[in-house]
Amino acid sequence: MSLENSSWSPAPSAVKQSPNHPLSPLTAVEIRTAAEAVKAICPGRPDIHFKILTLDEPEKALLVPFLDAEHAGRKLPHIDRKVFVAYYIRNTDKFHEAVVNLSKRKVESNRRVDSEEHAPVSNYEIIAVEKNVFEDAGVQAELKKLGLPKDTKFICDPWIYGSDGVNDQERMFQAFLYARDPMDSQNADSNHYAFPLAISPVIDGASFKVIRIDTIPTGEGFDIKPISNIDIHPPSEYTPEHQHLRTDVKPLNVVQPEGASFVATKQGETGEIIEWQKWSFRIGFNQREGMVLYDVRYDNRSLFYRLALSDMNIPYADPRPPFHRKAAFDLGDVGAGIMANNLKLGCDCLGSIHYLNGLVADERGNPDPRPNAICVHEQDAGILWKHTNYRTERAAIVRRRELVVQSIITVANYEYILAFTFNQAGEVSYEVRATGIVSTQPIDEGLSVPWGTVVHPGVLATFHQHIFSLRIDPAIDGHTNTLVSSEVHPMPLNDFNPHGVGYTVQESTVAQSTGLDVDTATNRVFKITNPNSLNPINGKPVAYKIHAPPFQKMVALPQSFHHKRAEFADHDVYVTKYRDRELYAGGMYTNQSRGGKGVRAWADRQDAITGVDGQGDDIVVWVQFGLQHVVRTEDWPVMPAEVLSVSLKPANFFEKNPSMDVPPSEQRINKSVEVGAGEAEKHLQGSVEGTVDGCCSTEESQPKL
Amino acid sequence: MSLENSSWSPAPSAVKQSPNHPLSPLTAVEIRTAAEAVKAICPGRPDIHFKILTLDEPEKALLVPFLDAEHAGRKLPHIDRKVFVAYYIRNTDKFHEAVVNLSKRKVESNRRVDSEEHAPVSNYEIIAVEKNVFEDAGVQAELKKLGLPKDTKFICDPWIYGSDGVNDQERMFQAFLYARDPMDSQNADSNHYAFPLAISPVIDGASFKVIRIDTIPTGEGFDIKPISNIDIHPPSEYTPEHQHLRTDVKPLNVVQPEGASFVATKQGETGEIIEWQKWSFRIGFNQREGMVLYDVRYDNRSLFYRLALSDMNIPYADPRPPFHRKAAFDLGDVGAGIMANNLKLGCDCLGSIHYLNGLVADERGNPDPRPNAICVHEQDAGILWKHTNYRTERAAIVRRRELVVQSIITVANYEYILAFTFNQAGEVSYEVRATGIVSTQPIDEGLSVPWGTVVHPGVLATFHQHIFSLRIDPAIDGHTNTLVSSEVHPMPLNDFNPHGVGYTVQESTVAQSTGLDVDTATNRVFKITNPNSLNPINGKPVAYKIHAPPFQKMVALPQSFHHKRAEFADHDVYVTKYRDRELYAGGMYTNQSRGGKGVRAWADRQDAITGVDGQGDDIVVWVQFGLQHVVRTEDWPVMPAEVLSVSLKPANFFEKNPSMDVPPSEQRINKSVEVGAGEAEKHLQGSVEGTVDGCCSTEESQPKL
Repeated sequence: MSLENSSWSPAPSAVKQSPNHPLSPLTAVEIRTAAEAVKAICPGRPDIHFKILTLDEPEKALLVPFLDAEHAGRKLPHIDRKVFVAYYIRNTDKFHEAVVNLSKRKVESNRRVDSEEHAPVSNYEIIAVEKNVFEDAGVQAELKKLGLPKDTKFICDPWIYGSDGVNDQERMFQAFLYARDPMDSQNADSNHYAFPLAISPVIDGASFKVIRIDTIPTGEGFDIKPISNIDIHPPSEYTPEHQHLRTDVKPLNVVQPEGASFVATKQGETGEIIEWQKWSFRIGFNQREGMVLYDVRYDNRSLFYRLALSDMNIPYADPRPPFHRKAAFDLGDVGAGIMANNLKLGCDCLGSIHYLNGLVADERGNPDPRPNAICVHEQDAGILWKHTNYRTERAAIVRRRELVVQSIITVANYEYILAFTFNQAGEVSYEVRATGIVSTQPIDEGLSVPWGTVVHPGVLATFHQHIFSLRIDPAIDGHTNTLVSSEVHPMPLNDFNPHGVGYTVQESTVAQSTGLDVDTATNRVFKITNPNSLNPINGKPVAYKIHAPPFQKMVALPQSFHHKRAEFADHDVYVTKYRDRELYAGGMYTNQSRGGKGVRAWADRQDAITGVDGQGDDIVVWVQFGLQHVVRTEDWPVMPAEVLSVSLKPANFFEKNPSMDVPPSEQRINKSVEVGAGEAEKHLQGSVEGTVDGCCSTEESQPKL
Repeated sequence: MSLENSSWSPAPSAVKQSPNHPLSPLTAVEIRTAAEAVKAICPGRPDIHFKILTLDEPEKALLVPFLDAEHAGRKLPHIDRKVFVAYYIRNTDKFHEAVVNLSKRKVESNRRVDSEEHAPVSNYEIIAVEKNVFEDAGVQAELKKLGLPKDTKFICDPWIYGSDGVNDQERMFQAFLYARDPMDSQNADSNHYAFPLAISPVIDGASFKVIRIDTIPTGEGFDIKPISNIDIHPPSEYTPEHQHLRTDVKPLNVVQPEGASFVATKQGETGEIIEWQKWSFRIGFNQREGMVLYDVRYDNRSLFYRLALSDMNIPYADPRPPFHRKAAFDLGDVGAGIMANNLKLGCDCLGSIHYLNGLVADERGNPDPRPNAICVHEQDAGILWKHTNYRTERAAIVRRRELVVQSIITVANYEYILAFTFNQAGEVSYEVRATGIVSTQPIDEGLSVPWGTVVHPGVLATFHQHIFSLRIDPAIDGHTNTLVSSEVHPMPLNDFNPHGVGYTVQESTVAQSTGLDVDTATNRVFKITNPNSLNPINGKPVAYKIHAPPFQKMVALPQSFHHKRAEFADHDVYVTKYRDRELYAGGMYTNQSRGGKGVRAWADRQDAITGVDGQGDDIVVWVQFGLQHVVRTEDWPVMPAEVLSVSLKPANFFEKNPSMDVPPSEQRINKSVEVGAGEAEKHLQGSVEGTVDGCCSTEESQPKL
């Protein structure tokens, strides 16, 4: 298809917009313009099914000078504004990628994607699959065999089909079927996961027609029983009207009477910068990664060029079909931006909250808002530091105020609460809370299997892993960084260490792109350094250390598709040499992928990453962390959030604790109140009763000695 | 010494006290009575130097029936009230242990302690050492050689001497000397750790006289330079008046307008029970362990008989004398109760706070209050669970309210913030935050050593470990428990697992007392089960799983005293068969200990611990966790708190998520306010401006599909 005639003139009535920052998310006008441009290049204007329509972030070689100029207050260089579009010709498997240059008003590239690659799933498809499944005569016939009440409402959760080396060329869906409580079928929020069915239709990804119906094994082995009457076991509802609610939880409010300490500054329609306690960064949002942070600085020192969750993989442990294909890449297969919750609806945030709206594109190329997709707020997280001089009893104490930038995604049954958290000690963390409902499948009552837990009569929750990959594009005091491995070893017993107590730190710079692991026995950890920037106190290169909890890597065997596909899931850390567009650790297209196109492949290039004379290079660090989910009854019907956190902490980056200048914790400001024994339930009249006196005088106490 | 005449009559004017609960801490009257009883048994009434005077907790064989009767509302059996006393004849090394039976009004045992064992350190001694050090002529002569200004104020931090196989029979102190900022010597809170001196006197533990003066090596090797003039480098103050304080931290208050949700019920003078969100437990306090929790139950189901920090060890990495002996047991050597901060003075707690007072004894046997040693309060910790039905967009969401029971200890330079935290999902955690000031020693400027970090000109902070041991005496649904090791293994590639994705959990019951380790590669974790109590849903034995972060064990070599003494520091978990009085993982007397009397020795008994027919036994589980502290400049002058946490979470103990009945998060109750972009600093007028509307309607939304 020729792109010669792909340019367009600006619409006459277009309002002259202030130029968007190169990292601002696409505006509604930009989305429509790009969609229209793509539709226009295809001869005959076929019906386009848009799958991806996002900002095509500028090449780093252009963006770094732009950001430098921005921070220095110089004239900003021009960078073309581009949009990446991936699309199907509707109801075909003709998958394409295009880049639309909005500045030059032309489609600058358009290519057919290899037929091995499949697009992610969109909401439109989820709806179409569910509809077609229940209109299918074969499915209806199977459902009838269940012998459930006539008005039973059946539910379909469409899943990506997964990969097995057999059908990978065909884009398909595996539908898992459930029923609302058959005794309460009008309850639109009935927990259908309590009634999983053994009927599992497979749907063609182009026509959305049912092409086959799989039957799920419900015994202890591979045997499949024909569908027949099933018993109705009790429901397991999670909505509050179905609980005997506790009545003794007293309200707890977080109040900021002078407002919040952060400043959120909008730029144009979609751009936003956050400044808080010497931190500054830009927030972006796109359909795949959801929240992205750019240009993260502390006290105007450069720290991170880009931070975002790169992908996650949830492989399941049931060896039997169809579950051998069950492994989800929630970002690559669907998208964290697409699945972002509206945080106002859910009362997710407590205190003084700032919301950011997101904007993605729907399958027709229209802007599709995600209102309140991100929330920003402060929280108190206990004491940051304290010291009491025991001789004078004078305490110096500072509280740990944090800034939280949070988004929540719902992926059918599961929820993930994702948050970047900053504190005043120069530390930034990425926290994931896994909650929501475990994926369920039917099991005959009274049976058990060694790869899952029965959480409810007839309901099996198979074990699985949650493995996350956080992509860190560092710029620690600049763009020449190295990855250093640091271990602690005992000194040998000898004349220099006659008592056997000595130990030292041994460090080595990682020379080539590779996968690496932490090691508790040697306290092996990794830090990102800038060899050109030395700490004035002790001469050590400034660094940020990675604090990530060790976790069991992908359990599935190396020969398995689970392992081949989730390229990040076999090491704690990957380090690669920066290349534009290498953003997604599992590869660009994860839906029914086969592997070979993600971070493991990039690391296998063995690029040198120490730079000229070991002075550092442009590297990317991928930090994995995860959870081995051996399901328990307490995870049902909704799971108490499991909390995972990765922290990046300064190591000889500052000359001293950067939070020494945080004002002390004082009762005058804290306004804590005292609650007495046996009085905890009494209504306290403001601060009249039981204020905490004598607290934190800023004057020196009388010295005792 | 005969104890035949050791009984006494009740004082005629003694107020008739209601009997104390067997687990209530000693009252002031009890302390005085026990001290007097001990003084009276020694012929000639010598001057007694009391070291330990605490409740002698009843034998479990008596206490369990008592607690059962208490919970069942039956008549309570009588249990004698006893006091454990350890003491010296003052200024001698004659160390004794006695047990005073207050109910029978007699000293029921008194014995001389083996001369190998030394008592912990007390505040009295710390003051006496500091005084004597600076009155010593030899020390004064050395100090003069430093050539510092005449009015320089010198400071002495007395340390336990440590063990080296040479001088272990003699109880001694190693004094580390510092100076206040020589240019600001009247500043009583000057950070003296910024001016460490190379003069280190050794003090006799009986006479408190200086018996030798060690010189600290300040180069890169063992060489010791004679004391001579030193330069005055800049100070490094931590008090707020010495900082340029930030001015942009807005207040954040935690307000509970209807009071707190917990109920604290005092029993007698010192006893206290806390009830909160189906949890109930008794809080105790003693000089060594600080906070102790007893009889911890959830929804009246038994969980833990006793929970307390057992000890901690901080071994240092400098191989050179005198540092080869530097390894502190902060509980065994001094005591978490003795060192507990007064939490009102420090503004340590935010919100609606309940304080408990502690009471220890001083070296004269007088009651020595620790007011506000423990605080209890609630906090919000984000979302507990959430699920959104994507079809209706209806979210069910519950916030994670926690109960915190906290104490803070100052151990000379360091602080530890210790907290038990409970949540509504039946989970209890123990969190340690390490903060305060790193231990420093002098180093010649411009030099560096591989076992420490220069944090300030002339100031070296040697690497060290912080290793903690949490003692868990479980009673999971009763006193017959087992410890089970649980691992995740891939299934082999075969006909049953043709795709290589299957994996299973493999469990084995630990048969004998032993030390054990977690293993990330197999996700090996441990859980405490009750084989007699089966989950009704899936038939699995109820359990609580231990979630402890893996850590690098004691690095010092096995031949070292560091290793021999800190018996708990070589394994993630120890399990022993319960015996009365086996409370302290490092042994009873850790000061200058040699090892052989702690949890490693008890485990080496290889007691069977699975009970009759594997039906469970009375076991104790010791969970270790820790931090390899490779010091960085950001840890100076006061360290941002490093947070370590161990959690105990139900595993098939409940039939479902026990927090399903927590009322939903609602804006009506939360009263969050919205902060706009660019408006974050505006003063918000209560809830008039920008309340979060439309949040969490409890009515069903219109279904979308």
